[in-house]
Amino acid sequence: MKIRVFVSLREGVLDPQGKAVGHALDSLGFKGLGDVRISRVIDIEAPQGTTEAEGLKLGEAMAKRLLANEVIEDYRVETSA
Amino acid sequence: MKIRVFVSLREGVLDPQGKAVGHALDSLGFKGLGDVRISRVIDIEAPQGTTEAEGLKLGEAMAKRLLANEVIEDYRVETSA
Repeated sequence: MKIRVFVSLREGVLDPQGKAVGHALDSLGFKGLGDVRISRVIDIEAPQGTTEAEGLKLGEAMAKRLLANEVIEDYRVETSA
Repeated sequence: MKIRVFVSLREGVLDPQGKAVGHALDSLGFKGLGDVRISRVIDIEAPQGTTEAEGLKLGEAMAKRLLANEVIEDYRVETSA
């Protein structure tokens, strides 16, 4: 089972990395683009025999503890077989 | 319209960032986890009036030109209204 944690900056929080990518794309000739936002996806192979419910709970715990900075980031957890 | 580009390391390519997160999770008490892989998601606001087909083509061009390093990374492009 795979646990997937999406981590993205909250609305309204400045994304300096996204800004840099946006400027780079513009200078490469991609004109007229709007906002650019960058998120992370962390895929984790769960321990053998983990159920879906356990996987979601484990993902939540890992996100809160390490993977997401809840002051400026939101996260979402998914599982897949 | 939003263009979403998923960029992930190819199968078989070592993910040092993923390894580091895996070790950190283990030291925080999350035992028995398998492989950890980290990918990027880049969301780009397309220029006004971009059609879906144009959005996909634009996403491909931006991925090839800047967003993905095709030597070690795969990418996938999606659009959403």
